[in-house]
Amino acid sequence: MNIAILFGGSSFEHEISIVSAITMKKVLKKSTLTYIFVDSNRKFYLIDTEKINSKLFSSGEYKKSKELTLKQGGFFIDGMFGSKVVDFDVALNLIHGRDGEDGKIASLMEFYTIPFISPRMEASSLSYNKLYTKFLAESLGVKSVEYEYLSCNDERKISIEYPVIVKPVRLGSSIGVSIVREASELDYALDIAFEFDTDVIVEPFIEGVKEFNQAGCFTKEWELSIVEEPQKEEFLDFEKKYMDFSRDSQVLSANIDEDLKRKIQESFKKVYDPLFLGSIIRCDFFVVNGEVLLNEINPIPGSMANYLFDDFEGMVERLTTHLPQEQKISVDYQYIHSIQSAKGKA
Amino acid sequence: MNIAILFGGSSFEHEISIVSAITMKKVLKKSTLTYIFVDSNRKFYLIDTEKINSKLFSSGEYKKSKELTLKQGGFFIDGMFGSKVVDFDVALNLIHGRDGEDGKIASLMEFYTIPFISPRMEASSLSYNKLYTKFLAESLGVKSVEYEYLSCNDERKISIEYPVIVKPVRLGSSIGVSIVREASELDYALDIAFEFDTDVIVEPFIEGVKEFNQAGCFTKEWELSIVEEPQKEEFLDFEKKYMDFSRDSQVLSANIDEDLKRKIQESFKKVYDPLFLGSIIRCDFFVVNGEVLLNEINPIPGSMANYLFDDFEGMVERLTTHLPQEQKISVDYQYIHSIQSAKGKA
Repeated sequence: MNIAILFGGSSFEHEISIVSAITMKKVLKKSTLTYIFVDSNRKFYLIDTEKINSKLFSSGEYKKSKELTLKQGGFFIDGMFGSKVVDFDVALNLIHGRDGEDGKIASLMEFYTIPFISPRMEASSLSYNKLYTKFLAESLGVKSVEYEYLSCNDERKISIEYPVIVKPVRLGSSIGVSIVREASELDYALDIAFEFDTDVIVEPFIEGVKEFNQAGCFTKEWELSIVEEPQKEEFLDFEKKYMDFSRDSQVLSANIDEDLKRKIQESFKKVYDPLFLGSIIRCDFFVVNGEVLLNEINPIPGSMANYLFDDFEGMVERLTTHLPQEQKISVDYQYIHSIQSAKGKA
Repeated sequence: MNIAILFGGSSFEHEISIVSAITMKKVLKKSTLTYIFVDSNRKFYLIDTEKINSKLFSSGEYKKSKELTLKQGGFFIDGMFGSKVVDFDVALNLIHGRDGEDGKIASLMEFYTIPFISPRMEASSLSYNKLYTKFLAESLGVKSVEYEYLSCNDERKISIEYPVIVKPVRLGSSIGVSIVREASELDYALDIAFEFDTDVIVEPFIEGVKEFNQAGCFTKEWELSIVEEPQKEEFLDFEKKYMDFSRDSQVLSANIDEDLKRKIQESFKKVYDPLFLGSIIRCDFFVVNGEVLLNEINPIPGSMANYLFDDFEGMVERLTTHLPQEQKISVDYQYIHSIQSAKGKA
């Protein structure tokens, strides 16, 4: 199979997307990979799979690669004698943060009729925004961590007890996130968060909380990963997460009982189906007093959480043959014809 | 000012978008109009403003027009000797339904850095889906009509008292909507709705309810339209709404007291700010026992609800100079540089 890896983007997570993308070379060994880079000015480049490395991007040398244009049906290389489509079976959206996770790439792929693995537009909008994720969870009957919402224009007043964790609503990879131990530190944490976003949510910071990650997708059946209990310090800062995006070897299952595993998997399925069909996502759960709480949805997890799966490459292939199809809408101009008739113009 | 009118789209409302677009010629008299048509295969065409009429599209003759390609910075005409950008100051998104209202066009305009008047992506996703509109209203403290949600896989059982109104969650212009007077009719109404969408909401159908429409936007200040009490029969079917999209002359204000008007405007402002900045929307409210309830958000109202404004054209111009700006993200590759240093590769 020929898989196009879309990566980069105009995003605070541009660089970790490059790391995720390069990691795919070690993970998708049987497939042909076609690398399509979205630079920070949102131009598309076809990157030579043999030559890909991080320096190609940091040095700006990627600009010597062929530029691509999106048109109906695919990415095209324009030349003197017309344009030629770039051939692949499916595009794997590996753009973390803005552009990739907010729904822009999904919109582009849908608009230009390109088969793609990624959350669709609605799923992106809801999971990119941590406040909307709360609405979604509530509507699905999936419990999540309690929270308060603050916009940058609101009074800086919260009623959740300290310590709390402050998160910009629209960013991933812990960017702009702070733990606040007492009221006097709140202002500073909000200053940081509002540098990145106009809205934040504040949640209780639960010391030593048990955290479990579940990734998966639905092909013709559920393909769920192992449940992982991530190694963690207080929380992963950006640089630590960065290294995390280059993981490519399988990890061990968390040592949990069948009942807890079942609860985690039930919650995952409720979140995933049907909104996230066509994507491979990772949900992060907290377990507090035996209760499973959704902490976050990672719509495009680092290196696609490949290290949680037995047969990641096979799954990508199976998902490619089971992508959700856009509803067909045929335009027949019957109303315009009938109006023209009425006006005597037909 | 030169205004590009984006219209058409792969949408059940493709044809009424054409009607809306043509109406703009009568409404935006002082401006230069640049018509960009999105055909049902999602190809872009530059349509001659002098020649535009509905038959151009129903006959397929539009295909003789110049095809356009979206690239960074604008729509381009590709020619033998390079490509030339189509010049305009702002794009007015007049694509009703899918593509225009679901966030695809907003994504494209943002991705390609084209100034545009339309709800942005998040606003589109939330208002395109009537279920998510309910979540939004709730989170903003705006009261809305009670409802039940059904997916096509759910048991067809409701607890709201008859008569009820069944609405596909993702369509406008009353497509797939039915009034159901008794339980025996529910199945048929759901069959119709599920032809168009996988999800529906069911609301009580309130006989003779008072309905009021409020349109507006925020430029450097609030620019709110008159409050209209729409003429209605039981509800507008598609063909009647269709004719409605060609309205171009101002209507009269509803005869309501200042207190009710203030309540309607307060609700409008709560919905609009900040999510809908950059757009001209219309909110439809019901008044039940003196209480103002949000019925629907029309993110791209028919002919942009021009007939509700005193100075529609001036407002479009003012909005163009007050569009929300995307957050600047600079990519400096400092993490990749530091990793390269650590590995001795820098």
